[in-house]
Amino acid sequence: MRPAALFRDPPEYPDEGRTGVASAALTTDAHVVRAMRRALELARLGPAGGANPQVGCVLLGPGGELLAEGRHRGAGSAHAEADALSKVPEGAAAGATAVVTLEPCDHTGRTGPCSEALIAAGVARVVFAQSDPNPLAAGGAARLRDAGIEVHAGVLAEEAAALNERWSASVRLGRPWVTAKWASSLDGRIAASDGSSRWITGPEARADVHRRRAEHGAIVVGSGTVRADDPALTARDGTGALLPHQPVPVVVGHHQPAAGAAVHAHPRPLLSVRAHDPHATLVAIAETGARSAFLEGGPTLVSAWLAAGLVDELLVYLAPTLLGGDRTATLDLGVATIADQRRLHVREVHRLGEDLLVVARPAERD
Amino acid sequence: MRPAALFRDPPEYPDEGRTGVASAALTTDAHVVRAMRRALELARLGPAGGANPQVGCVLLGPGGELLAEGRHRGAGSAHAEADALSKVPEGAAAGATAVVTLEPCDHTGRTGPCSEALIAAGVARVVFAQSDPNPLAAGGAARLRDAGIEVHAGVLAEEAAALNERWSASVRLGRPWVTAKWASSLDGRIAASDGSSRWITGPEARADVHRRRAEHGAIVVGSGTVRADDPALTARDGTGALLPHQPVPVVVGHHQPAAGAAVHAHPRPLLSVRAHDPHATLVAIAETGARSAFLEGGPTLVSAWLAAGLVDELLVYLAPTLLGGDRTATLDLGVATIADQRRLHVREVHRLGEDLLVVARPAERD
Repeated sequence: MRPAALFRDPPEYPDEGRTGVASAALTTDAHVVRAMRRALELARLGPAGGANPQVGCVLLGPGGELLAEGRHRGAGSAHAEADALSKVPEGAAAGATAVVTLEPCDHTGRTGPCSEALIAAGVARVVFAQSDPNPLAAGGAARLRDAGIEVHAGVLAEEAAALNERWSASVRLGRPWVTAKWASSLDGRIAASDGSSRWITGPEARADVHRRRAEHGAIVVGSGTVRADDPALTARDGTGALLPHQPVPVVVGHHQPAAGAAVHAHPRPLLSVRAHDPHATLVAIAETGARSAFLEGGPTLVSAWLAAGLVDELLVYLAPTLLGGDRTATLDLGVATIADQRRLHVREVHRLGEDLLVVARPAERD
Repeated sequence: MRPAALFRDPPEYPDEGRTGVASAALTTDAHVVRAMRRALELARLGPAGGANPQVGCVLLGPGGELLAEGRHRGAGSAHAEADALSKVPEGAAAGATAVVTLEPCDHTGRTGPCSEALIAAGVARVVFAQSDPNPLAAGGAARLRDAGIEVHAGVLAEEAAALNERWSASVRLGRPWVTAKWASSLDGRIAASDGSSRWITGPEARADVHRRRAEHGAIVVGSGTVRADDPALTARDGTGALLPHQPVPVVVGHHQPAAGAAVHAHPRPLLSVRAHDPHATLVAIAETGARSAFLEGGPTLVSAWLAAGLVDELLVYLAPTLLGGDRTATLDLGVATIADQRRLHVREVHRLGEDLLVVARPAERD
């Protein structure tokens, strides 16, 4: 995290060593890149859970001075550009440069198109990082250029894309992004023969799971898991307190939770999907506005989604223990012979206390 | 590896900055530690496979000058001290310091006791690293002290102990050290449903397995694995050539290899154990002189040894792939409930190409 003091009040962009006329400084790449870094910082303050992208915007005056900062705060609220423009007096953005992490939208949803707002405000230049992957919202850059505005794309594009990776992939795939997670022994078991499993992994691994739950729009379990474990399906901190963002709890299967099940105490209403088809479940999840799902089990559910090719990222928490027996993390995946194996690409390996976390993705898609 | 040039010919111990009378330098710790490092280097040149310990010895004259170096070359050959003493003229070791990685033995086996040889040679001082864990051979330090020789123990003791860890443990446990290995998918399967498994892991992981085979005295598989895979049970390099040390091939079970099985081409004669009891197998292995066994499978064999508590180290090669199905790396381990889980301590995690290697040991023993 860069210090917030990068931008100061009174708004004077701190460009060390800048001399001479201010407009000269405006054309330096370092100057714009620094503003984009700040825009990325602002974006990161935005909505968790990925229903909407995280977007930040910095407005610079013709002399490179800071005019305003803005960010998107979640579905239905102003886009980052509109948020920034709302903070300057009418006419004050004329000739300004808008530095924004995502291509300004050209789409009227719950808010009007940002392209029009920037044109109306009279900005001279727009610099953005990531192109809009959403075909409904894209076209902003072209509209701005048509209006005679100078447009630069791709500044810190990789950082911006990483920020909204799940949201972008969801837009591209036309369905929520799916992260599947399990915690197993080193020999791939999730429980002892009698079904007992508390605890296989340690507190660091469990905290990591909660943190990642809060980064997803929905959390999905099978009804068998609800019956067996009665999970709360909330994202909690180490003290048990709820984290700010809570994923929508989704229970899949024909046997829905009993009246007294812990999931009914979830701060968000339960989504019951009385079908086993993963595609149908994803449609129902998308209808809640969620653009990502955190698939927690059990083995029947996870195996069905893996077999259907609907898992985009896999988190395997490996505890240093052996269990043997028949409680495997996966069941049949349709791998009749080794040529059918489902190859993954390992992206990260972490030590979490005594446990390991392997973050992997399907090899063909990575 | 320290450069071999640390000791030079003509033998003059290179003690930078040493001035004045040589006997003063002899008493500096750094001087002796440096000689011990060299003795450890010599030890590492010794026998692989761990049937005998790796031991090195450096003889320093009364002035700190190098008199001779020695090392143990394997069962039946001279111990390191005797090897070093054999290189100096009679009487030339009088007043010398013997720096040796393992406590000099006090035992007549295929060679006479080193304690006596050192006393007879008239050495003034003996410095050693690791105490002898072998009750049959121990007592050397006491015998030397009784003879009026100055004895110092524990110099670089940890490094020396690591060098002969499996041998020392075997002496302590009264049976060969057991390393169990399997290669599985991330979900703990060793093959697809039809039994096909070539290749789950990549070339780096397979090379690592061969290197570790060569560090063990015996390699053990079940007769089912021999029938299914027809393994050569040799330790080979990347070109398929045999590594210098070959573990004794051991096949366990009532169905012994067919006449044309690849294992019959092994450079060492096959040990057939027509029983499933791990203890009986270990006795048979110990009778070959091997002090360590590399247990390669299959699941029935490995599970039986794990359940019997006879695995000292576990190597799990995890390939980034999912297989599902019923070909699990382990079977029943007698873990009825989670309290019975077999906790491990992870000592190392390596990336080997696309694969992971987890090196773990039973938690209660580590």
